[in-house]
Amino acid sequence: MSILTVGTVAFDSIETPFASAEHVLGGSASYISLAARHFCDDVRLVGVVGQDFPDEYRQTLLDGGVDLEGLEVDPEGKTFFWHGRYHYDMNERDTLETQLNVLETFDPTIPESYADSNIVCLGNLEPGVQRSVLEQVVDPDYVIADTMNFWIENTPDSLRTTLQEVDCFVINDSEARELADEPNLVTASDHILDMGPDTLIIKKGEHGALLFTEDSVFSAPAYPLEDIQDPTGAGDAFAGGLAGHLIRAGSLNQESLRRAVVYGSVMASFVVERFGPARLLDLGPGEIGERAQSFRDLAAIPSLVPLGKQLA
Amino acid sequence: MSILTVGTVAFDSIETPFASAEHVLGGSASYISLAARHFCDDVRLVGVVGQDFPDEYRQTLLDGGVDLEGLEVDPEGKTFFWHGRYHYDMNERDTLETQLNVLETFDPTIPESYADSNIVCLGNLEPGVQRSVLEQVVDPDYVIADTMNFWIENTPDSLRTTLQEVDCFVINDSEARELADEPNLVTASDHILDMGPDTLIIKKGEHGALLFTEDSVFSAPAYPLEDIQDPTGAGDAFAGGLAGHLIRAGSLNQESLRRAVVYGSVMASFVVERFGPARLLDLGPGEIGERAQSFRDLAAIPSLVPLGKQLA
Repeated sequence: MSILTVGTVAFDSIETPFASAEHVLGGSASYISLAARHFCDDVRLVGVVGQDFPDEYRQTLLDGGVDLEGLEVDPEGKTFFWHGRYHYDMNERDTLETQLNVLETFDPTIPESYADSNIVCLGNLEPGVQRSVLEQVVDPDYVIADTMNFWIENTPDSLRTTLQEVDCFVINDSEARELADEPNLVTASDHILDMGPDTLIIKKGEHGALLFTEDSVFSAPAYPLEDIQDPTGAGDAFAGGLAGHLIRAGSLNQESLRRAVVYGSVMASFVVERFGPARLLDLGPGEIGERAQSFRDLAAIPSLVPLGKQLA
Repeated sequence: MSILTVGTVAFDSIETPFASAEHVLGGSASYISLAARHFCDDVRLVGVVGQDFPDEYRQTLLDGGVDLEGLEVDPEGKTFFWHGRYHYDMNERDTLETQLNVLETFDPTIPESYADSNIVCLGNLEPGVQRSVLEQVVDPDYVIADTMNFWIENTPDSLRTTLQEVDCFVINDSEARELADEPNLVTASDHILDMGPDTLIIKKGEHGALLFTEDSVFSAPAYPLEDIQDPTGAGDAFAGGLAGHLIRAGSLNQESLRRAVVYGSVMASFVVERFGPARLLDLGPGEIGERAQSFRDLAAIPSLVPLGKQLA
């Protein structure tokens, strides 16, 4: 069983109110694959970097167990670069600079050995590029996709076409409101499920995540963390844990989806504890299991007594 | 077993993006007591209104089963008035006008028959007025209190003094951050618990609520509602359901507190379905029980399998 991740591999320069770091390994494909690897031995990465991508970062991904046969090196170009600054409460951020570089002309070619991938996890990329990847994979079991406001605003028709091929769409709350043109998240989720996906997951940062299917809603809490070093990659680590658990479970029923949301939340809660993807590299399976159990305890509602007055 | 509620009894003029209503019955004491009455036969209200308070609204509270012996009528004054407008997404609001009127000189006298109240629920009022109420109740079992940014900013010392006598403090997330002067809610909760209360509940509107005690955190979801007519009073209905369940349960352990947060959330989810407190007046016990069960289903995380790779 295998997971194919497609997305950016990037240099991130990150500023928080308390620290900063320059040119750390980043990008959606990096975070998704490093998170998914904790659940699945066969995680494949498709992306592009420039000639400036250091061996050290390639080695980091390899040490994380990620298959890099699909990582293209554009000898003419520079690696995608993002520079962002987080606000005081760490819930919002400003993008200070984006250099698309090699991403501008990225037209992914999937290695033949990747064509049999079971789950395809499409990180945030131009929707046409996401479709081009799907066309090269033979009948995947499950397609998970992310997007961002930029594509919702600038390539809405292309995004709608991609959504018809997506099983599970994972976006944040502001993106859901914008895509559906509707402030109420429940109504917005109805509209988005009508666009194609069977499952919609709305990420709400420090407020957790909502899982919508046609006839069910699940609300997952966020892990209450006292020390958040760097929120970068939390959403992608979420997608990696989600895909990872679904591969491991081998089923896509409501229980598996709920557990997958919990493991996604677990991976997101770990990644923010350190700058960049560092925390994904030293995580043990025991830690993941323990935190997943903490999520269950955190959300546990005791059985309810029938309503009557003054039982005491 | 009895609940004493203290707070405002008001005229509210409410504007939402979709409708508006003028001079509806409002105020923290009205919402708390009308919600608590679904759980407890003996709910007592302490507050003040002016000569302009109509018999019709008095009758609404009486029909809701609220004891009004403690509702003072100031023959010289006018009833407290609030005029607010909700934003497009219903999560934020602007206060357009506040007329304190009879509240300016409110110095509550608790009827002798109220002195034996078991739970005291202090709605948002000047912290000194909240203490004056506590001084007139003989050894209550449990004290629940709310506040607002205005008192955090303008009477911080008085608020700290009141907090030393409060068992369960119920505020929203922006108030918690401001009171603790700390953006992280987990750290903020530590600071606030150090101020006196054993239990802190942070209300997050559409994102649910967090329950903090010394050694435990509980995250409750919000009920995903498609049709929100008027968010006014949701926080107070929450406090009413919370107090109501605790009276009914007759215990204050972690399980009772978690259930109480769920019943608080249930009452908040009902009150927003109609303008003003109308929904609290036609609610049946069956509806409350059903929605509480829906909350449990909404948050249910299936048992977790031990972490291993590729179980499928």
